[in-house]
Amino acid sequence: MIVIGIIGDSEASEEEYKFAYILGAELAKRGFVIISGGRTGVMEAVSKGAKSAGGLTLAILPSADKSEANPYVDIAIPTGLGWARNSLVPLASDIVIAIGGKAGTLSEIAYAWMYGKPIIAIVGFGGWSEKLAGKKIDDRRPDFIYPARTVEEVLELIEKILSNLKKSK
Amino acid sequence: MIVIGIIGDSEASEEEYKFAYILGAELAKRGFVIISGGRTGVMEAVSKGAKSAGGLTLAILPSADKSEANPYVDIAIPTGLGWARNSLVPLASDIVIAIGGKAGTLSEIAYAWMYGKPIIAIVGFGGWSEKLAGKKIDDRRPDFIYPARTVEEVLELIEKILSNLKKSK
Amino acid sequence: MIVIGIIGDSEASEEEYKFAYILGAELAKRGFVIISGGRTGVMEAVSKGAKSAGGLTLAILPSADKSEANPYVDIAIPTGLGWARNSLVPLASDIVIAIGGKAGTLSEIAYAWMYGKPIIAIVGFGGWSEKLAGKKIDDRRPDFIYPARTVEEVLELIEKILSNLKKSK
Amino acid sequence: MIVIGIIGDSEASEEEYKFAYILGAELAKRGFVIISGGRTGVMEAVSKGAKSAGGLTLAILPSADKSEANPYVDIAIPTGLGWARNSLVPLASDIVIAIGGKAGTLSEIAYAWMYGKPIIAIVGFGGWSEKLAGKKIDDRRPDFIYPARTVEEVLELIEKILSNLKKSK
Repeated sequence: MIVIGIIGDSEASEEEYKFAYILGAELAKRGFVIISGGRTGVMEAVSKGAKSAGGLTLAILPSADKSEANPYVDIAIPTGLGWARNSLVPLASDIVIAIGGKAGTLSEIAYAWMYGKPIIAIVGFGGWSEKLAGKKIDDRRPDFIYPARTVEEVLELIEKILSNLKKSK
Repeated sequence: MIVIGIIGDSEASEEEYKFAYILGAELAKRGFVIISGGRTGVMEAVSKGAKSAGGLTLAILPSADKSEANPYVDIAIPTGLGWARNSLVPLASDIVIAIGGKAGTLSEIAYAWMYGKPIIAIVGFGGWSEKLAGKKIDDRRPDFIYPARTVEEVLELIEKILSNLKKSK
Repeated sequence: MIVIGIIGDSEASEEEYKFAYILGAELAKRGFVIISGGRTGVMEAVSKGAKSAGGLTLAILPSADKSEANPYVDIAIPTGLGWARNSLVPLASDIVIAIGGKAGTLSEIAYAWMYGKPIIAIVGFGGWSEKLAGKKIDDRRPDFIYPARTVEEVLELIEKILSNLKKSK
Repeated sequence: MIVIGIIGDSEASEEEYKFAYILGAELAKRGFVIISGGRTGVMEAVSKGAKSAGGLTLAILPSADKSEANPYVDIAIPTGLGWARNSLVPLASDIVIAIGGKAGTLSEIAYAWMYGKPIIAIVGFGGWSEKLAGKKIDDRRPDFIYPARTVEEVLELIEKILSNLKKSK
């Protein structure tokens, strides 16, 4: 199973929520498992979208309490690790998609970069995903953070990334 | 989804492996999701059994490398946390089943106890599950570690525990 | 600097508190750094004793809040990791001393064993230290958990262990 | 004891190493405890400088092996947590100073911001400290990341920050 990690704003505008919802649905239709931090905003929207399309949704929670997860999470993995759990969502993902985001998302993008995960950053909703789209975090990797403005662009990028991952094996 | 955590020996005897395999299959037939440490021995056997019955298997790995997971794991969650990940499998479980086990399993039983998770300990393969079956870790909980000698006993205990959990909500 | 980790009851009887206080003072007199979980009971007593003798005391806290530490901790390391921090105190120690203890202490003894740390278990105050004194957690190590009934016995054991550690280098 | 956390490049230019060395010495002269990731580059330089002035140096290591620490670390706290330990150095610090830095440092700056720690970012050696100096990570805090170009500026900022922290208590 291919796991797509979604990181981003825990408070999302209506437009951003809708974007994440549609993205979740499209990812689920393609058979991807969704993993997120399991909380509100973008994390809720993407899980809700994925469930609307019959997908499977996981969440890695900061708290030790499963009830912290939004209602669209199939399997909640409470950690009790606090913000140290920010290293876990990127690490569990085959590809990471960032939508907006504040300091927490920034830490997750940094981890995704350290762990060599392909990163797609959404442009259009501000936040760290927009600031870092098209850029490199440092010089350890030959690639960069792929920018995407639409769900279609995200899906095309995922296809390209997966095809490259297959070749490199 | 109800998540059953399996902890135990990473090196299992043939009999123990068979027990865990059948247990995994029976749990999967009942729709339970299996979570384990994702490695060899009991963890492999239970995942293999669950897959044979069409179940869903998760694993929380100590290393940062998905390939550490045995081939019967659907979704591997690498953590890079080393043995600190021993707190995560019990915490992610609704019920924990211990089969044999050395120091790592002992730490997981202790965590399951601290986190208030019902624990079923298998008797018959030695290890910490046998030593602690029927006992209490300390006085913080009214219950004790439920002993079970057969897969049937495990399944009956799960039914009772789930029925009690429902009542207490 | 040699670091002695103290694990044990967060609620200690008067006698146990006094034992840990004297132990802390004697360890500090010999120049050992004390590390503990930084909370109440045995952790407080050993830190208080160490400070009375001019020692240095560290604590690795479960919460993200330094103020959780007892007032006898010089340097508090808050982790926000919850009970996953139980892996850290044994790992940071050169020798681990267990005094009484419930499930949390049991998880720490298990970690100390996994990480190959020499363990001294106090007999006389019940708890997991007494239950495991003189025993092995599993067969991965040639040694066992050293039992001690008095502060003098602890100090003698430390001397022996350190002399053995030197030889093995 | 006031703990100053130093985060930054594990590979430092000669000039950057010298800067961190002098900073470490000046911090130690003022009685501050130094905490870092304990590895090479800036982490080594600041610890070496602090020791030259009789200071106390701690390190929180990613690995489970104390020998990963540079020789200027008094007390090494191995964690075995991999990069998840990046949350721990900022959290254990009263003030965080960033010198240069790649993705790992970026994750630590993000954590320092989330945990409400005052951050001083050195300008002059590039890296994430320079990129973020004078900026905000997000809008959760009224302050910003304080820029500093010289050791003197760092020391003045620390004085101001500590005086403000006292007032706010």
